[in-house]
Amino acid sequence: MSEILRKDVFSLPEGVIYLDGNSLGPMPRNMPETLSRMVSSEWGQLLIKGWNAAGWMDQPSRIGDMVARLIGAPQGTVVMGDTLSIKVYQAVAAGLKMTPGRRVILSDTGNFPTDLYMVEGLIRTLDQGYELRTVAPEDVAAAIGDDIAVVMLTQVDYRTGRLHDMDAITQRAHQHGAVMVWDLAHSAGAIPVDLAASNAEMAVGCTYKYLNGGPGAPAFIYVRSDLAETIQPALSGWLGHEAPFDFAMNYRPGPGIERMRVGTPPVMQMTALEEAMRVWDDVDMRALRAASIALQEQFIADVEARVPALTLASPRDPDARGSQVSFRFEHGYAAMQALIHMDVIGDFRAPDIMRFGFTPLYIDAGDVTEAVDRIAKVMDDKLWDDPKYKTRNRVT
Amino acid sequence: MSEILRKDVFSLPEGVIYLDGNSLGPMPRNMPETLSRMVSSEWGQLLIKGWNAAGWMDQPSRIGDMVARLIGAPQGTVVMGDTLSIKVYQAVAAGLKMTPGRRVILSDTGNFPTDLYMVEGLIRTLDQGYELRTVAPEDVAAAIGDDIAVVMLTQVDYRTGRLHDMDAITQRAHQHGAVMVWDLAHSAGAIPVDLAASNAEMAVGCTYKYLNGGPGAPAFIYVRSDLAETIQPALSGWLGHEAPFDFAMNYRPGPGIERMRVGTPPVMQMTALEEAMRVWDDVDMRALRAASIALQEQFIADVEARVPALTLASPRDPDARGSQVSFRFEHGYAAMQALIHMDVIGDFRAPDIMRFGFTPLYIDAGDVTEAVDRIAKVMDDKLWDDPKYKTRNRVT
Repeated sequence: MSEILRKDVFSLPEGVIYLDGNSLGPMPRNMPETLSRMVSSEWGQLLIKGWNAAGWMDQPSRIGDMVARLIGAPQGTVVMGDTLSIKVYQAVAAGLKMTPGRRVILSDTGNFPTDLYMVEGLIRTLDQGYELRTVAPEDVAAAIGDDIAVVMLTQVDYRTGRLHDMDAITQRAHQHGAVMVWDLAHSAGAIPVDLAASNAEMAVGCTYKYLNGGPGAPAFIYVRSDLAETIQPALSGWLGHEAPFDFAMNYRPGPGIERMRVGTPPVMQMTALEEAMRVWDDVDMRALRAASIALQEQFIADVEARVPALTLASPRDPDARGSQVSFRFEHGYAAMQALIHMDVIGDFRAPDIMRFGFTPLYIDAGDVTEAVDRIAKVMDDKLWDDPKYKTRNRVT
Repeated sequence: MSEILRKDVFSLPEGVIYLDGNSLGPMPRNMPETLSRMVSSEWGQLLIKGWNAAGWMDQPSRIGDMVARLIGAPQGTVVMGDTLSIKVYQAVAAGLKMTPGRRVILSDTGNFPTDLYMVEGLIRTLDQGYELRTVAPEDVAAAIGDDIAVVMLTQVDYRTGRLHDMDAITQRAHQHGAVMVWDLAHSAGAIPVDLAASNAEMAVGCTYKYLNGGPGAPAFIYVRSDLAETIQPALSGWLGHEAPFDFAMNYRPGPGIERMRVGTPPVMQMTALEEAMRVWDDVDMRALRAASIALQEQFIADVEARVPALTLASPRDPDARGSQVSFRFEHGYAAMQALIHMDVIGDFRAPDIMRFGFTPLYIDAGDVTEAVDRIAKVMDDKLWDDPKYKTRNRVT
């Protein structure tokens, strides 16, 4: 595990045990300098010339290649931009064009809500009788039939950490002529992913969780190589054009994955993300996965031994989980607030889920032991019963 | 003009005369420190708590109110996010829902290409016989008839600076039952705009030009107050939801303009933009407009007197121009490269337009005099004939 742990790369407040890297990863230590230098020497000195001279224009593809390596995607098949919500819309809209005559988008109740909302919006916009059908996660495979246009799933359930079998579901989707779109928000940088082997048509994800790109870091989209030259972008912005600086009146899709770019990229966020991605240069995803499972197993065993009031909400089989562990507790919101007050940061998801992310780049066994000690303290002393922990924040 | 000029606020390289603030505004001097502090003390120290404790969640509305003041929009009617391309899609998609039965989106050949491309993509996605009709800018008013669903125009032509009459065109659109969408990319921070008085339904714009938000700064969208509670967002992301942190399975649009938010906002870009927007706190837009026109008139007079080979491409009437002046020259690309080499930064737009932006916050009469001296040097000495200036960059 020692070759995975690199606490010195990240800046974490003294004494904090951060088990929320599945929501927002911590800051790589050199980030203030990276951003300060970028704006001073690039924006400040190069001004408009930065698009060429500082390589801003190529950042979305360059970083896309860095993400590709972590998700089993060939070089040149991933591009960064926009938000995950926008990328879901792009992917599903493209998928519908590939399955004419079919009218059902299949998802599950474990999907992150914005994925479902974006599809709802697409369906309302199209107004052609499309249907978003959501089933329980365990019923997805059986629900894939010949009426399904697109299967759109988040691989790791944001509440429970339950992991879908990417290969099996993709295969079943293809047997029934459906297009497969995977949301890898809780997968990229968390578990080994082999997109190319799965043969899925498209995937999307975000980079502010396990990839530590910072708040609002750009999303990514993957399109399978054989489709990249024919796919029709619904969001056909100028930076996805074959020749943006010709300023032609008509859209002509750019080469390959470039066509999934839309507008002017957020250069500061891209710069921060590119810096954060360098951390991954020598990370072996299998070793990281082993380290993550070890931390999770230790956590589950210790919590169950010492805090019986918490009920495991995640699958018990480590191979069926992503890189998080969730427990149910009736007063979970207040308990989590009390815990955060004691510098163990996890988060809460309605109605009763206390969620803990395990990120072996900066969390070790000693952190897990200490975190469980403090969880036990919150529960043994009923700190969750303090009214000050019961007031809901806007973001929880 | 002295009360408008504030060169000390911006960091510009020594000796550079920057006439490209209509493409990418320069860096406010305190930006490195602002970003460095934001990531250190907010991301680095607050981590996930930054969404509440550092006000990240409210930034898009808070900055929206700052932009609103410059474009004649009431508080609470503008929200920031995404890119201009995405905001065009949102606005036009919403406009089509408001005009059932109509099938034509009207624009002009002076519109920025991405606006047209995004509408093309929307039309292809809808696949219901919609048509994008583009006419010459001077023919727009006459082309508005009872078949038009949405009129979508950029107020200031990105090549020539030609200014549309916002009130007259909006009025004509409404007389014919069409929805009006204005792109204010080259208007916000450049000229006084009174959106509320125009009665237009929607407007969009970017913030990296005259508003100096930095490369890839977020876009804005305005929705007229009386429509904000009924408009149906096509891009219905979780941060436009009535209660994002309820994680409900179904989308319910948020209150008012909030529903035009989509995904997780780019906090670093928002922070940079918020800092850049403070520059505008005490800027009187009428005084700025007067200063801009004075600079433009001086520039046109001097160029025409000294460099007859350049032909004015902008309207001669200052009231018919935005805050830029363009000249045509057959070898304009190379001439602009030579000029940039002499530290006068403007830009080139195909096929033959040399474009100069006038931004009275950091450009004064002395700069104009010096710029024209160098333009005359480029032309008198035929520096544009040097082969080294003829190689095209990717971004020009």
